[in-house]
Amino acid sequence: MTGALFIAGLGPGNADMITPQVADALAQASDIVGYAPYVDRVPARQGLTLHPSDNRVELERAQHALEMAAAGRRVVVVSSGDPGVFAMAAAVFEAVEAGPQHWRALQIEVLPGITAMLAASARVGAPLGHDFCAINLSDNLKPWALIEKRVRLAAEADFAMAFYNPRSKSRPDGFARVLKLLNDACQDTRPVIFARAVSTPQEDIRIVPLPDARPEMVDMRTMVLVGTSATRLIGRNGLPFVYTPRSVSAGTGAA
Amino acid sequence: MTGALFIAGLGPGNADMITPQVADALAQASDIVGYAPYVDRVPARQGLTLHPSDNRVELERAQHALEMAAAGRRVVVVSSGDPGVFAMAAAVFEAVEAGPQHWRALQIEVLPGITAMLAASARVGAPLGHDFCAINLSDNLKPWALIEKRVRLAAEADFAMAFYNPRSKSRPDGFARVLKLLNDACQDTRPVIFARAVSTPQEDIRIVPLPDARPEMVDMRTMVLVGTSATRLIGRNGLPFVYTPRSVSAGTGAA
Repeated sequence: MTGALFIAGLGPGNADMITPQVADALAQASDIVGYAPYVDRVPARQGLTLHPSDNRVELERAQHALEMAAAGRRVVVVSSGDPGVFAMAAAVFEAVEAGPQHWRALQIEVLPGITAMLAASARVGAPLGHDFCAINLSDNLKPWALIEKRVRLAAEADFAMAFYNPRSKSRPDGFARVLKLLNDACQDTRPVIFARAVSTPQEDIRIVPLPDARPEMVDMRTMVLVGTSATRLIGRNGLPFVYTPRSVSAGTGAA
Repeated sequence: MTGALFIAGLGPGNADMITPQVADALAQASDIVGYAPYVDRVPARQGLTLHPSDNRVELERAQHALEMAAAGRRVVVVSSGDPGVFAMAAAVFEAVEAGPQHWRALQIEVLPGITAMLAASARVGAPLGHDFCAINLSDNLKPWALIEKRVRLAAEADFAMAFYNPRSKSRPDGFARVLKLLNDACQDTRPVIFARAVSTPQEDIRIVPLPDARPEMVDMRTMVLVGTSATRLIGRNGLPFVYTPRSVSAGTGAA
């Protein structure tokens, strides 16, 4: 038996956003590896072994998956959203690089998924409809000073922004500092979107002007989107639409 | 009959990356609206009217779709990739804002898709595995100076970068200028990935060090990814894996 390793994205939550490519990989797998809440999203069946693990053991999980694939198993490592965006793909390749040479010859494929920022963006309109950036606000794996530097430069570039992991246990004041930095840099009322658990029964969406954004509006399941200086709201019954126009007129924003 | 408008992402090309949510919307549509090559990807069937249109008529296309939805049709506007990333969603909301008040009461939903940068990233490993940005290099709708400013700030932030529409007919030297700017700013050999027509029979992937990247390596179907200062290659038979580690050590890259 020839082993293989797939690193698959399950999308934001609802099964109707799992691609057929990922569904096929799950259907043909012998083993599913991942953070327990994501493994829980894969239906159990005869012949399928589930290997749920805790948070923050990404490298050990990746090594385990690679060992099983090298032993001839057909392994799927599952991530929420897209595996290449602040998820398991990078951890697997870190393990490959540091591991035995024969791991490099394995069939290893990344199967993309709908990442949280694009699900959140779709839910409210098109706030990322112009140039944008994605920043992981967790300082587990990088210095906090680098996060602040990137947010400052992103504001200067007038990027729309998507913040993953806005709430850090180790630095509870982190997101408050980001909000202060953004208010100082932007000096406007651009919309901030708090999108919690998009496409699940716990979904909760909130749209507020930047000066009204508060740290307590986020938890571990919240994705934060920040508009550009040009982002617009379209009022209607219920949640407004939010979109960033495709055009920037000459003379605006350029150095 | 109550009309509705869906703005749906068809993913990068292969049908196995179209979400079930989008497939359902297509199956229930009365009308499909979009740029002709994307409309061509929707199979014809009894009761379905296809409305292919030319490039660069996004606003007219959006208005047409809204008029049909307002008249009670079930309309799907199709985009390649994700509709919220340099595609039709922003154009539709521009048309809604400028249009008659009753358009705001329509059911309008954006259905996300696998955007080109994430399909390309998955194809080679995890080059966007750390903070990154997405920049549309077309200067049809924004001044060229703003594009250069954003690329410069993105390099300073040490973001991985994804460039959409790298080849501009109106400014054939644009991408050459971006490469020069990146080489001046980065002064290293970080990998650049040219990913053409990912997941289609025309797929072609090329990975070169930044100093070897050339303008003629892109055409209208190429997505360009640029690593950070920390992005790594894992050599193997065939295409190497490319990934950006999740960690940045303290003292690196911070202001």
